[in-house]
Amino acid sequence: MIDSTSLPLAGAEPPLRADAVRNRALLLEAAARLAARRGAAAITMEAVAAEAGVGKGTVSRRFGDRNGLLQALLDRSESLFQEAFLSGPPPLGPRADPATRLRAFGPALLRHEHADLELYLAAEPSPSRRFAVPARRLRHRHVALLVRALLPGADADLLAHTLLASVDVVLTDHLVRGHGMPLARVEAGWHDLVDRLLT
Amino acid sequence: MIDSTSLPLAGAEPPLRADAVRNRALLLEAAARLAARRGAAAITMEAVAAEAGVGKGTVSRRFGDRNGLLQALLDRSESLFQEAFLSGPPPLGPRADPATRLRAFGPALLRHEHADLELYLAAEPSPSRRFAVPARRLRHRHVALLVRALLPGADADLLAHTLLASVDVVLTDHLVRGHGMPLARVEAGWHDLVDRLLT
Repeated sequence: MIDSTSLPLAGAEPPLRADAVRNRALLLEAAARLAARRGAAAITMEAVAAEAGVGKGTVSRRFGDRNGLLQALLDRSESLFQEAFLSGPPPLGPRADPATRLRAFGPALLRHEHADLELYLAAEPSPSRRFAVPARRLRHRHVALLVRALLPGADADLLAHTLLASVDVVLTDHLVRGHGMPLARVEAGWHDLVDRLLT
Repeated sequence: MIDSTSLPLAGAEPPLRADAVRNRALLLEAAARLAARRGAAAITMEAVAAEAGVGKGTVSRRFGDRNGLLQALLDRSESLFQEAFLSGPPPLGPRADPATRLRAFGPALLRHEHADLELYLAAEPSPSRRFAVPARRLRHRHVALLVRALLPGADADLLAHTLLASVDVVLTDHLVRGHGMPLARVEAGWHDLVDRLLT
């Protein structure tokens, strides 16, 4: 019941005019430069406008508010990640068998989110939206499909939520930065979890 | 490394004078009445002061801010839950074997949190504090001890986080209220997860 609807990919939006597309790309590049130089906290509507050499109103019209801008920034890397697990090469993509894809998914997700860690933490949705954002739902649908193929008798929807929760970015940040746990141990934990579930 | 520190139980605080204890209890009872009558959203410092027939300053001095008041409200039921799994009767408490206790823990946690659902959702800590609050750390330490006893070779710290994340209150609220999933299915999912991990 959860994964039966068609999900838009990250960044899927009504088509924009060519100048609006260029404009949006320039603003996102300015925001990405700011994030790389001074961290996610430095991304404000004002700072992005200044970095791109436009007025603040231009940024507001394009992204609404700061959270909209952060989500749009993440959409770019989210799209690359989605391409990788939906249609990329093995072990993530569809030419690998389901068990191989499931084993590869956790570490790929961890590396994807930890490469943009500050952005993902800054853009964490509120509780009421957390599990409803399209990117999250697409990840869930993908993992649930793999679980269903591997464990026909299991509650694939719930197991997929459990698997994703085990590598939640807020949890893994708490473990890695808060407790000094190597990211490699979290990745090994995913493999161990998948192996225990599949045997 | 995560569960080696001594953890205060919920509600553990420096001792208060007798009148301060009475005062605190009266305010919490007023807040609980408000929550029962009008939901967690109705709990404001002003409303609790009015319900208890005191000035707002009295509520502020006792609880600091609204989140402090919500946490204090939860401390009461959290203490009862902690007693149940730390020293209560079987199947939760220490006279049952570890596998029985672990199987019983998830449904007990689900029922505990869903009985105070609005309060738990309203009081959800920010990302930087989410896994550091004492109640959460105590739950994690408890589950990790059981996992360690049952699966000596496993990464008990990580598996305990995974188990707790599978019944996270924000996730299960999304499933139960957002998608109409019966709570009994989430409880069955916990049993299935524990059984798959233990076999």
